[in-house]
Amino acid sequence: MGLTSEAIAYVRQRHARFLRELQEFVRIPSVSAQPRHAGDVRRCAEWLAEHLRRIGMEQATVEETARHPVVSALWRRAPGRPTVLIYGHYDVQPAGPPEAWAVPPFAATVPDGALYGRGASDDKGPLFAHVKALEAYLRTGSLPLNVVCLFEGEEEIGSPSLRAFLEQRRWYFAADVAVASDTRFLAPGRPAIIYALRGSLSMELELHGQRRDLHSGIFGGAIHNPLQAICELVARLHSADGRVAIPGFYQRVRRVSPAERVAMARVGPGDAQILHNAGAHLGWGEATDAQGLPYTLYERTTIRPALTINGLTGGYQGPGGKAVIPARALAKLSFRLVPDQEPDEIAWLARRQIAWLTPPTMRGIVRVRLGARPTRIDPLLPAFGAAARAYRRSFGASPVLLRSGGSIPVVTLFQELLGIPTVLMGLSLPDDGMHGPNERFRLTQFYTGIETCVHFLAEAARCEDLAGAAGSLRKRNR
Amino acid sequence: MGLTSEAIAYVRQRHARFLRELQEFVRIPSVSAQPRHAGDVRRCAEWLAEHLRRIGMEQATVEETARHPVVSALWRRAPGRPTVLIYGHYDVQPAGPPEAWAVPPFAATVPDGALYGRGASDDKGPLFAHVKALEAYLRTGSLPLNVVCLFEGEEEIGSPSLRAFLEQRRWYFAADVAVASDTRFLAPGRPAIIYALRGSLSMELELHGQRRDLHSGIFGGAIHNPLQAICELVARLHSADGRVAIPGFYQRVRRVSPAERVAMARVGPGDAQILHNAGAHLGWGEATDAQGLPYTLYERTTIRPALTINGLTGGYQGPGGKAVIPARALAKLSFRLVPDQEPDEIAWLARRQIAWLTPPTMRGIVRVRLGARPTRIDPLLPAFGAAARAYRRSFGASPVLLRSGGSIPVVTLFQELLGIPTVLMGLSLPDDGMHGPNERFRLTQFYTGIETCVHFLAEAARCEDLAGAAGSLRKRNR
Repeated sequence: MGLTSEAIAYVRQRHARFLRELQEFVRIPSVSAQPRHAGDVRRCAEWLAEHLRRIGMEQATVEETARHPVVSALWRRAPGRPTVLIYGHYDVQPAGPPEAWAVPPFAATVPDGALYGRGASDDKGPLFAHVKALEAYLRTGSLPLNVVCLFEGEEEIGSPSLRAFLEQRRWYFAADVAVASDTRFLAPGRPAIIYALRGSLSMELELHGQRRDLHSGIFGGAIHNPLQAICELVARLHSADGRVAIPGFYQRVRRVSPAERVAMARVGPGDAQILHNAGAHLGWGEATDAQGLPYTLYERTTIRPALTINGLTGGYQGPGGKAVIPARALAKLSFRLVPDQEPDEIAWLARRQIAWLTPPTMRGIVRVRLGARPTRIDPLLPAFGAAARAYRRSFGASPVLLRSGGSIPVVTLFQELLGIPTVLMGLSLPDDGMHGPNERFRLTQFYTGIETCVHFLAEAARCEDLAGAAGSLRKRNR
Repeated sequence: MGLTSEAIAYVRQRHARFLRELQEFVRIPSVSAQPRHAGDVRRCAEWLAEHLRRIGMEQATVEETARHPVVSALWRRAPGRPTVLIYGHYDVQPAGPPEAWAVPPFAATVPDGALYGRGASDDKGPLFAHVKALEAYLRTGSLPLNVVCLFEGEEEIGSPSLRAFLEQRRWYFAADVAVASDTRFLAPGRPAIIYALRGSLSMELELHGQRRDLHSGIFGGAIHNPLQAICELVARLHSADGRVAIPGFYQRVRRVSPAERVAMARVGPGDAQILHNAGAHLGWGEATDAQGLPYTLYERTTIRPALTINGLTGGYQGPGGKAVIPARALAKLSFRLVPDQEPDEIAWLARRQIAWLTPPTMRGIVRVRLGARPTRIDPLLPAFGAAARAYRRSFGASPVLLRSGGSIPVVTLFQELLGIPTVLMGLSLPDDGMHGPNERFRLTQFYTGIETCVHFLAEAARCEDLAGAAGSLRKRNR
C-alpha cells in the first residue's frame, strides 16, 4: 500500500473523532471584528497550535501581531521535494442577529448531515480538512513533500497585520506554491478552482448634524436630519443604471477579452443559479458594457467592481417610535475592485466625492480601511493541475476554473512578498450560508475534502515545477 | 392670610421634601415604548395614585387601558365653582444611548441646581408641580374650585388608548377647561402659552430584499441591497428644495394670515434663537411660500408640515466591518401636520407614494400609527388670561402666545370628546433636553412653577366663564 492509500485508509476509519474535533474548533467564538471576543480569538489560536503539535507538525507556534495572533507550523523533512504553504483562517465573522439562526451560532450541532455554526465553512471546516490530511500522512508515515502552515486570525477584518508579519518572515514561509480552501464549489459535485479575485476597500462614513439629539416635533422642518442626509448621500453614490456614481471610478477597469467572457459563460454559474444561491427573485446592477452587451450576474460579481452598503445606523432602533432628530448617522460601505483599480486611488476618489456630496448642514467623517488589490492567476499554473487531479480522485469530478467576487487579501500578499501563486481549492458549497445565519459545513464535504487534501499533497509532490511561469519569476527575483 | 397666600407659604417651606419626592418619581423608568419597561410604567402609575391619595385627592385610581394604565383622581367639593381638568403624563421617552448621558438617565441626580433624568422636564417635573399645588391647598384648607386629574402613561407612544378610555368616562372628566404643562418657556424668564400644535402620524417602513443576508463580495453588484434601496427611497421623500415630495401632501395646508405671521415674527423665537436651542449652525427646510416670502425657522416648525426620519437600521452595526448584504432594512418616519391636513389621508398618500417608489427588487411593508389632528385654540380664551396672571404673580413676567411644532394628542381629544379647550401652560425651558440625553428640570422652574399652578387655580376660580366661546359651544352641545 502506498503512502497515499495508507493516509486515505487512516482518514476513513476516523470520521467520528475528526467531527468531534471540528465541533470543538467551531465552538470557540473567534470573532475577530468584536473586541469582546479578543480572548476567544487567542484561545482558538492556542487550541489550533496545540492540535498541530499533537499531530506531529513541527515548530507549531502562536505568534503575536498588532491584533490577533498567527498560528504557524512546518515540516521540512523532504529535501529536494517542493514546498506547499497551507493557508487558512481560524477567525470568523460576527454571528449576526441570533433570532435569524435556527440553532445557536456557536453550538456546532449536527442536526442533518451538516455541522452548523459560524465559521463552519468559512473557514474552520476547510482549514481543518487540510490539518487532518497532514495528520493522516504523519501518523501513517511521513509527508510526501515539505509543508509550512499559516493560519491567520484577521481574515474577516481584512488581514491588517499580515503584511508586516510576512515581511519579517519571508524565509520561514518560503514555498513553491500556496494552497487555501476559503472558496466554494460551483454546486454540489462540481468543484471549482478560483483563478481571479476582486480587491476590496472598506469605509465608514459618519455624518454629524446639530450638537445633540432633538425633539422632531419641536425642530422637524427646520433642522437637517443626519439620517436623511446620509440617505441622500448614499443614494447618490449609485446612478439609476446601477453603476457606481463616483467620477473616475471605472477609469482603470481592465476590459476582459471576449474569449474569456465566452469561457466564463460556458463554465460559470448562470443568472438563475446565482439568484437561487442568493435567495432573490430579481437581479440588479450594471446592465451592459460600453458596447451594449449585457453583463451576466456572474460578470457583474467578478469582472466588474461594486459598492455595497454593509450597515447603516442612526436614531431610534427600538420597538415603537421615538420623536427624535438624531445628532449623527453612520454608514459602513465596502468596494469590490477589479484589475487595474488601485485601492488607495479608489479611496481618494470616494473621499473626494463624499466631501462634494456632503451638505453644508453636516460635518462628514470618513474612515478608510485599505483592503487587497484585485488578483488574477494564470489558469495554466501546474499546481492547478495537481488540484484538478486531487478533486477527480476524491469527488470524482474535474473542477471548473472560476472567477470569484470575493477578496482574499493573502493571495495578493503571497504574490507580492513570497512571489508564489495560490491554489484556491474550495471545499464549501454555495448555499453554506457564509457570512449569513445558519452557516454550515456538510459532513460529506468535510470527509471527502480531507481526501482531496491528501491527494493534493501527493500530486503536488509529483510535479516537476509546481508554480510554472510564476515560480520561474520567483527564482529570477531571488 | 387668604387661601392662596397660605398655599404659597406652605410650598416655600417644603422645597426639600418636594424635591426628594420628584427624584423618587423620576427614578422609576416608566418608558412606555419599550415592552421590557411595562412593569415600571405600572409601578409608576401606582406610585402616583398613592401619592394623590396621600395629599387628599379623592377617588385616586389606576385604571386599565389596552396597554398602560391611566391615573385619575378628583376633588369636587366646590359646588357652583368651575372645574379644571389637570392633565399630565407619567410615561417617558426611551433614555437613548447611555454613553451620551453625563449622568445615569434614571438616577435623578441634582449636580447643579437642576434635576437630571429622563422625564425630568417631559413631563414628570411639570406634572408634579400641579400635584404639589393641589397638596398646598388641600393641606392648608381646601381647593378654590373643582379639580379632576388625568395622568396618562402612553403620551410618548402617541396616546393610543386614550380616546377609547375617555369615550367611556366623559362625565367623570367633565370640566370647563383643561390645563397641561407639557410645553416650554420661550427662554428663561419668558413664559409661554401654546395656542397651536402640529398633528402627528408615525410610520415604519421595512424593505425586504433577498431571503437571507449575503456575502457582499460574492454577490455585490448583482443583488439589490435593501439598505441601499431604503436610502434611495427615503432620499426621494424630500425634494431638493426641502419640501416633502409626496403628491397631494400640501393640498389641504391652510394658509396662515399675514397678520398672524407678523405677530409670530414679533413675539416668537428668531432663527438665531432656534439654531441656538438646536445646537445647529445652519437651518434647513422649506425656503419660501408660494409668493416667495421666506419662511422663518419658527414658521417651518409650526405653520408648515414636516417629515422626519427618526431611525434607520440595517446590516452590520458593530465595530469594524462585515462583508454583508442584509436581507432587510427598516426606517422609522414621522410626519408633523398642520390644519387642515388629516392624518388618515396623509397616511394614505404616503403609503401610495412609498409603494410607487419601492423598486421591483424589494418587498415593502408599511406600518402606520395614526397620531393626532393638528389643533389651534382661540388666543382670546379667558382661561389663557388666568394663566397669564398666574405667570405674572409667580415668575413676574407675562407669557407670550406661541405656536408649537410638537403634538399633544390629548388636546385634540379634550376638544372632540369633552368639548373643552386646553391651557398649555409650560414650565420647562427650551434647552432642557426633552427627548435627548441629559434631560433636566431646573429647581427654580420647579419651585416657582408650583406657585404658578397655585395661582392658576385661584385665578381660574375667579373667572366668570373660563372657556369663553369654546365653553359656550360645549354647553350648546350638551
